[in-house]
Amino acid sequence: MEYKILGKEDLTPQAIASLSAKDREELCAELRDKILNTVSANGGHLASNLGVVELTVALLSVFDYTKDKIVFDVGHQSYSYKILTGRYDDFDTLRTKGGISGFPRINESEYDAFDTGHSSTSISAALGMARARDLNGDDNYVIAVIGDGALTGGLAYEAINDLGHSKTKMIVILNDNEMSIDRNVGGLSKYLSKLRVSSGYISAKRTTEGFLQKLGIVGRGLIKLILMIKDFFRFLLYRKKPSMFEDLGLNYYGPVDGHNTADLIEALNAVKDIKDPILIHVITKKGMGYAPAENNPSDYHGVGPFDLETGVTKNGKSCYTSAFAGALEEIAEKNPKVVAISAAMTQGTGLEHYSMRFPTRFFDCGIAEEHCVTMAGGLAVSGFVPVVAVYSSFLQRAYDEMITDVCFMNNHVVFALDRAGFVGQDGHTHHGLCDLSYLNSMVNMMIFAPRDYKDLRNCLDHAINKCSGPVAVRYPRGSSPFEADGPLYDDPEDCVKPHLASARGTDFVIISVGRICAEAEKACEMLEKDGLLGKHINLSLVKPVPAADLIGLMGDIRNVFTLEEGILSGGSGESIHTEVDKLSSIYSITSFAVEDPVIKAASPDDQLKTAGIDAVSVAEKIKKSLGNTK
Amino acid sequence: MEYKILGKEDLTPQAIASLSAKDREELCAELRDKILNTVSANGGHLASNLGVVELTVALLSVFDYTKDKIVFDVGHQSYSYKILTGRYDDFDTLRTKGGISGFPRINESEYDAFDTGHSSTSISAALGMARARDLNGDDNYVIAVIGDGALTGGLAYEAINDLGHSKTKMIVILNDNEMSIDRNVGGLSKYLSKLRVSSGYISAKRTTEGFLQKLGIVGRGLIKLILMIKDFFRFLLYRKKPSMFEDLGLNYYGPVDGHNTADLIEALNAVKDIKDPILIHVITKKGMGYAPAENNPSDYHGVGPFDLETGVTKNGKSCYTSAFAGALEEIAEKNPKVVAISAAMTQGTGLEHYSMRFPTRFFDCGIAEEHCVTMAGGLAVSGFVPVVAVYSSFLQRAYDEMITDVCFMNNHVVFALDRAGFVGQDGHTHHGLCDLSYLNSMVNMMIFAPRDYKDLRNCLDHAINKCSGPVAVRYPRGSSPFEADGPLYDDPEDCVKPHLASARGTDFVIISVGRICAEAEKACEMLEKDGLLGKHINLSLVKPVPAADLIGLMGDIRNVFTLEEGILSGGSGESIHTEVDKLSSIYSITSFAVEDPVIKAASPDDQLKTAGIDAVSVAEKIKKSLGNTK
Repeated sequence: MEYKILGKEDLTPQAIASLSAKDREELCAELRDKILNTVSANGGHLASNLGVVELTVALLSVFDYTKDKIVFDVGHQSYSYKILTGRYDDFDTLRTKGGISGFPRINESEYDAFDTGHSSTSISAALGMARARDLNGDDNYVIAVIGDGALTGGLAYEAINDLGHSKTKMIVILNDNEMSIDRNVGGLSKYLSKLRVSSGYISAKRTTEGFLQKLGIVGRGLIKLILMIKDFFRFLLYRKKPSMFEDLGLNYYGPVDGHNTADLIEALNAVKDIKDPILIHVITKKGMGYAPAENNPSDYHGVGPFDLETGVTKNGKSCYTSAFAGALEEIAEKNPKVVAISAAMTQGTGLEHYSMRFPTRFFDCGIAEEHCVTMAGGLAVSGFVPVVAVYSSFLQRAYDEMITDVCFMNNHVVFALDRAGFVGQDGHTHHGLCDLSYLNSMVNMMIFAPRDYKDLRNCLDHAINKCSGPVAVRYPRGSSPFEADGPLYDDPEDCVKPHLASARGTDFVIISVGRICAEAEKACEMLEKDGLLGKHINLSLVKPVPAADLIGLMGDIRNVFTLEEGILSGGSGESIHTEVDKLSSIYSITSFAVEDPVIKAASPDDQLKTAGIDAVSVAEKIKKSLGNTK
Repeated sequence: MEYKILGKEDLTPQAIASLSAKDREELCAELRDKILNTVSANGGHLASNLGVVELTVALLSVFDYTKDKIVFDVGHQSYSYKILTGRYDDFDTLRTKGGISGFPRINESEYDAFDTGHSSTSISAALGMARARDLNGDDNYVIAVIGDGALTGGLAYEAINDLGHSKTKMIVILNDNEMSIDRNVGGLSKYLSKLRVSSGYISAKRTTEGFLQKLGIVGRGLIKLILMIKDFFRFLLYRKKPSMFEDLGLNYYGPVDGHNTADLIEALNAVKDIKDPILIHVITKKGMGYAPAENNPSDYHGVGPFDLETGVTKNGKSCYTSAFAGALEEIAEKNPKVVAISAAMTQGTGLEHYSMRFPTRFFDCGIAEEHCVTMAGGLAVSGFVPVVAVYSSFLQRAYDEMITDVCFMNNHVVFALDRAGFVGQDGHTHHGLCDLSYLNSMVNMMIFAPRDYKDLRNCLDHAINKCSGPVAVRYPRGSSPFEADGPLYDDPEDCVKPHLASARGTDFVIISVGRICAEAEKACEMLEKDGLLGKHINLSLVKPVPAADLIGLMGDIRNVFTLEEGILSGGSGESIHTEVDKLSSIYSITSFAVEDPVIKAASPDDQLKTAGIDAVSVAEKIKKSLGNTK
């Protein structure tokens, strides 16, 4: 479609604010078109972005993006905001190397208020900004936009509790689309749906229209009146006093139709100058305006490139996630003590089929990684074997609970860390680079980093059926670089031993951890061409470090290099170094790992290169270290 | 006082359940006496334990501690429970080496359901146990006892959200004493106080009595009736429909007088067989029965030995905490951009005076470490310098937020980690041993580990006034082993350089981190007597590792030993090893650190010995390593 508004002139705050109702509608249509075209080409977050087009236009019609602060929770719904705040021309580069990030980034634009990516941070960050504004005596507005899913995260509640008694002028927009990534669970979700239904969403909207039209005329006088009689007013308007947010000290307004810009603008104008914290409950539909996404929002949450006409996504390749899910089902079939726990990521962690097959042995606890882990501790002391399936970077939320509620008691909880290593287009907030480090620091924790699907199955089976304390199995996003059945060995028990992947000579040893063994082996091949012949040892079990077995394989080859897809500090390289040193001092061990984890969107292969841990970089570093440039 | 009940016979569940009302009163008095005598001698948590004497007796009168599961949140209120469940005879050993822990410990008694210590875990852990019970088809009761302070933690909310929709039979006892460690803050606190007042606590209680007496006769029939007409019933009974917990799916009952065992027992009996999750709101008074603690519960939260007659505590020694607080005040006086943030630990972190002096530049956010950190991120992007003062082990809760909301954006937030290292009597859940490891793994983070008060002041000043990204200053509980003014140097800028503490010879180098330099220096003195003469270098700045400066001081002394009060994995030893190795390969570096952090209550000196990092152990290890036993 040809755009009448987008790309034609600078969309200043004033220009957006003065759009006619018809032009606003046109702008929304153009934004949807732009988002659909870009995401279908580049991949990205679709359903969430289509859901907030009108809300974003309304926010930018009422607030001045050059002064006011809008914090988008998680940030995977900020595409319209980016397009409208100076990034239209570059938007085609979305999620590509050097391009526009799929999340707000303060280094990308001065109009991005805060980096987001992990859930439930927006109210806290916005409250910090509001408090800073008050201390400075400024008068800009601060707005947090948070989904109902993100509101199940404890961090959001902590922030509401603090905001509620702060009396700080701040607006929380509750973007209620009845869904986070998966369908919402929990008491809050039921409560919100009760609010939606019992308050008579549509009829309330009609009544609101009448009131707010008058507001446009009467203005501030009526606002004061509203405040004086607010309970009565709200009672009339919405026929139910929504209590939970009020109990916590927030003024509740809503629900408002999130796809009607006029309603949204009027509501925002009506309440924006109230001096107390306010929550505006906005109802939106994920995927709005694109039928495939409306019908299957989960499938279009984070999506690869797809065919815009048919909606057909181009995936279907085997991946670690499905290998994990398949293995877990097989194991759970035989072991009735196995239960699985998800933090609102049933689909993302591959557990949809498991959850249908073993409904009583599956718990989706919401975006609540901390609760998932402590709850798992309770199940473990009661004799069950909980498998907590969470993305590596999201499990960081439960660092403390893993230590105190699982590891200290040596509870048999299995952590399945998906998306360990580089994740590609989501960029640095989503990389699973810290896990080897934080897991290494946990007493009693055993860590597996399987290299391929078969190894993953063996490690998971060992973790569930042969261990009695905490065990982590970390595996990457995407596909195995090896054949489905695994190239390396057959004995399941081998997962606890170092594996000799290749033995060309005695010039050096590479110890690789997990999937990156493919890069290590390529490096060995490259080095062979330079006349440098080494041994390549791959580890699946990385904690406890099988130091004696490693030394057995290394023999008297002194030059040792470790390679892992994770941060250097506290990672496997350092722990191998420490543990091998305890037994023998003949080795000179150098660790190749990620030193700066802030590596932006690109392909995972690119990210390996940027980090300097791809085959070529590793081969070069080893050559240099060995003082051999032939 | 002489005990009629305690210590006379085995207090089986049946024995407790069949006590007469008079004997229950007597038992409560004896428990108070026992707790007061023990805590005044050994130190411990006083106010919280005195507050739940009746509640504990009531719980054990209704529930069978050999079958049912009672999870005490934080666990610093479990003394009565411990005394009544087989640990009366050993209770004098409370918090001493090898003695009864001050917190529930599953390894101490089969009747302790779950290890606690960190806040807000009880509902999650109990829900895990309740789900395990349901899967097993068992019928035991599961009870979580949680304070109103712990309820401000996001983890508790995540658990309530999950529990609320679970329809699992489980009881949450909200022990509302209007106070966590410090006076509660936040919307929830206001809400609870509204519930207490507006529902007419006393008059409601009287009405309840009438109803519940009838319940004793009518039993299950009436309970069903109650459920059928529960809204009406509750309306009559309490004159207000408490909504927030109901909104989240819990049945609310209360408030109940927490110091009347008959009321408590009747309430528990009335609701215990309801199949849905229930929250019973119990009102207690911290310090109940001991006037000094009733009047100043904060002072008697965690207390050292004190005089039982006068209530006078035996403290007053200088400590790192007050050195930090004094320094912060001085710095904040000069730098108006400094703001301080506490997670319900204003007193514990020494910030009471600061908070009164700079009320607008101080935020106590409740037991909400995650929110504190993300809120700090919001203040930092707005130009302020937030100082987040949290105990080292509690800051673990915010591991993810520190990474994503502070470090990735390189926000200038200063983390003041109190209680870094061994904490003594509180035991392993409270040791601050992980911080060097988790801080090391955070990109952009700078870490100081000052050795004495003066160094602490210099490091804090440098962190606030000379840095522009995230900085952590970690310091231990208790007193400096050095003179108040610091023995070592005067130039404030020296805090960023390795300091040569002593130089006796060239047999070895010890690199010590922070306060433990006192042990390192003692070890050097001991080794000198054995004819082994070394250098001792102390670091305050541990990240980035000042590797070149270190090498400058170490020269060609190859045998290097690092010493730190923290875990080995990812700690300073490993990072020094890695960074020095990058510049020079001549050094053989061995790290002395904590390998097993599960070190129970004892004096910090004892704990250093158990970990093998006290002066004697270090000297022995170095001697052995150097192959010299003369």
